[in-house]
Amino acid sequence: MKHPKVFKSILSAAIAFGMATTLQPAAAESNDKRNVILIIGDGMDDTQVTIGRNYLEGAQGRLVIDNMPYRGAVQVLTVHENDPSKFIYVADSANSATSMATGAITSRGRIGTSAKDDKDLTTIAEMAKTSGFATGIVSTANVTDATPASFVAHVSSRGCENPDMMVNAEAFAGVIVDCSADTKALGGKGSIAEQIADADIDVVLGGGQKHFNKNAEAMPKPLFTVAQDNNYQYITKAKQLAQVNPNQKLLGLFSESTMPVRMQGENGRGSEAPKPSFLNKVDWRVGDVEMPAPMKCEANPEFEGMPNLRDMTAAAISHLDARSANGFFLMVESASIDKQSHARKPCGQIGEMQQLDESLKVALDFAKENPNTLILVTADHGQAAQILPDGSLFNAMPVAVYPMGMVSRIITPEGQIMAVNYATTPHGFPIEEHTGTTVPLYSNQPIPAMLTQPEIFNLLKDHLQL
Amino acid sequence: MKHPKVFKSILSAAIAFGMATTLQPAAAESNDKRNVILIIGDGMDDTQVTIGRNYLEGAQGRLVIDNMPYRGAVQVLTVHENDPSKFIYVADSANSATSMATGAITSRGRIGTSAKDDKDLTTIAEMAKTSGFATGIVSTANVTDATPASFVAHVSSRGCENPDMMVNAEAFAGVIVDCSADTKALGGKGSIAEQIADADIDVVLGGGQKHFNKNAEAMPKPLFTVAQDNNYQYITKAKQLAQVNPNQKLLGLFSESTMPVRMQGENGRGSEAPKPSFLNKVDWRVGDVEMPAPMKCEANPEFEGMPNLRDMTAAAISHLDARSANGFFLMVESASIDKQSHARKPCGQIGEMQQLDESLKVALDFAKENPNTLILVTADHGQAAQILPDGSLFNAMPVAVYPMGMVSRIITPEGQIMAVNYATTPHGFPIEEHTGTTVPLYSNQPIPAMLTQPEIFNLLKDHLQL
Ligand SMILES: [Zn+2]
Ligand SMILES: [Zn+2]
Repeated sequence: MKHPKVFKSILSAAIAFGMATTLQPAAAESNDKRNVILIIGDGMDDTQVTIGRNYLEGAQGRLVIDNMPYRGAVQVLTVHENDPSKFIYVADSANSATSMATGAITSRGRIGTSAKDDKDLTTIAEMAKTSGFATGIVSTANVTDATPASFVAHVSSRGCENPDMMVNAEAFAGVIVDCSADTKALGGKGSIAEQIADADIDVVLGGGQKHFNKNAEAMPKPLFTVAQDNNYQYITKAKQLAQVNPNQKLLGLFSESTMPVRMQGENGRGSEAPKPSFLNKVDWRVGDVEMPAPMKCEANPEFEGMPNLRDMTAAAISHLDARSANGFFLMVESASIDKQSHARKPCGQIGEMQQLDESLKVALDFAKENPNTLILVTADHGQAAQILPDGSLFNAMPVAVYPMGMVSRIITPEGQIMAVNYATTPHGFPIEEHTGTTVPLYSNQPIPAMLTQPEIFNLLKDHLQL
Repeated sequence: MKHPKVFKSILSAAIAFGMATTLQPAAAESNDKRNVILIIGDGMDDTQVTIGRNYLEGAQGRLVIDNMPYRGAVQVLTVHENDPSKFIYVADSANSATSMATGAITSRGRIGTSAKDDKDLTTIAEMAKTSGFATGIVSTANVTDATPASFVAHVSSRGCENPDMMVNAEAFAGVIVDCSADTKALGGKGSIAEQIADADIDVVLGGGQKHFNKNAEAMPKPLFTVAQDNNYQYITKAKQLAQVNPNQKLLGLFSESTMPVRMQGENGRGSEAPKPSFLNKVDWRVGDVEMPAPMKCEANPEFEGMPNLRDMTAAAISHLDARSANGFFLMVESASIDKQSHARKPCGQIGEMQQLDESLKVALDFAKENPNTLILVTADHGQAAQILPDGSLFNAMPVAVYPMGMVSRIITPEGQIMAVNYATTPHGFPIEEHTGTTVPLYSNQPIPAMLTQPEIFNLLKDHLQL
């Protein structure tokens, strides 16, 4: 690269002052390094992008992602754990990220391992590192969460994030995981956090201090110290991003767990159930229904002090570029499009969509200077949120017509109401399901119009000539 | 075109024998004619395509549409009738088809007319006809339905399909329409069926005999006779498609109303509500739920005798090509992806997706011989159906987790269960809503990766050099 110092100093200033990075290099110059920046919007199907666009730019507006010159669709593939010849039509982030990272199709919950026979699958990040590329993962989730983990770790369950969660642990939503075969005592590589602490990854940024505050397996030493012993500099504050030492690997964890999101509903409101009258509950053909009141989105006070995903991305690119002989592979995840949709919080989704879009801008600015940079933006699977008419298409009928799910009626900056419905689980149950739609793929370079998710691995590999 | 007779005779044979048309011309040859084939899958968002793919080709399979070389996304735009400066985030087929046909943004329910001031908007088909192109519309709905109508008619409400539906008529779902200003008595162009009967359209194929059996306004003469007086040959049987006279315009109506769809659920089953136990109804945290039994899709006996959309498309192409000096504009609609999704019938949707895919094959075969043919495939708006996990992602929780909507659990030919959920209206209410997602755009020629729906009009116009 011809202008590493210029790029880095502008980035540092941008981070320090909270500015968007809008570099305008004089002209693209030739560069022998090859780079890949893979940006994953977790759960970011077309509906989620449209929710973001309508709110952030207006119905006629365009996000940065909308200006990507090439677009394809990706068929997500998942198989049964017990019979990998059989397909399941809805994925989770573990198996879908493993597909992108390794080119294999696996079963839900698996991190970099194959269904049934539990073999480790070599990841694109590992292949890149072996061939002299710098590698990095950035996420607004725990860095041990399914998506980032699938690029750098191998374990039979996504729930095995730290040494205390390996055996008979409740990982999430009642799922009891058993990764005993992965413990170091039994010759395994340990939990996801241990594998990251032990690994040779140039940049790891995101949330998840709680997992690295745990002691390593059978050692009286927390994992962040293990990482420091392994030549990681460990940072926990946003402002430290501007002062990292390029001679050391970088582990930055900015929150205990998932990083707080940028936006929330008015006074923290999420989606609410329409309230049918007593009569309507007895017979849907009579009586009224009261819909939730419209609301604006507002800044989430808990986001205070967090680095933006844009700033983490800029710091990662700068660090990787400085440390790479051949170029780099970077995976950036905007994780809470998914997590906030699970929680029926469209304002949270919108803020995360905005974070993804800003990070893409940083990546595109870098690619202008470094034309051998492949940028791919995609999702791992679909999510529950749907945009519905605010007021039924059939409101001329003499009955109350309203969605069956939990609803948010968001007042957009252009002054209109966007109704978002979540109806994949019972109202009292706190989490929505994933969906089985194809997901979009965007690129700055020509890509097939349709491919399967494991074929994304091939695009990455081919670009890096691995 | 160099081989009109060869193409036509093969098509005729294919139609007569019910074969798929798979022409393999020796080589593309230059041709001064320019053609556009616009294929609209009504309600065909990415989820609907994925439902079709999973069932028809398997999770790893590919539809014809998946092999289209270029792909973009389309932002659907709708405005308020009373204040066209304000956006609404969910469209109907009338305003969205009007956008594609005219390049304007209008309000729901409008056919080729502007919001609020009710001006007629010139359509691409009208512009093409004026410039010496042949024009045609083909649909599995009534040819007077919103999508085809928007390309050839101008009326203030989609409900005004025939002369009896112009004033104070209940069009659908309780909507009372008033198109009195469009009556011929008041100097208007009359109902949609009258406008078609009076127009100079080379091919009109689909359903809707009931609208053309009505007498013309203030005349003791049914509209199909008015059409015959206007040099349309009128056919009503599939087999007549193989024997049309190229010297006359063609009006083919094969059913009273919407054409029956090809597929249905086992024994006609549609989606069914999960049945929570009494305990679970009282408190979602206890008790069980009984999910609908899985089912296969089967042939719909009512489809017997109907022409396939593929055969209508082939006949339309052949007729248009024979009648065109400069080339042609053809709009083909697979209408019941939308209508069957409204009715929560995924097997019906799948059959209509298959019909669209087969028609696309016919169009691609023609384009091989006639390289100046632009093929666009898109949807007008999103639909309610969602693919959900069959068995919750959270089934480790000690509560019943199930979708809030009506559910079909379809046994796919690859032996797996695909669960489809419809949850946008109350269970007793028979119709689901549209959704506000961006929709896909596929083409055989390079297209922008992202555009608004009115910009599709520009693609059509530019290709025909209008
Ligand atoms: Zn998720
Ligand atoms: Zn519809």
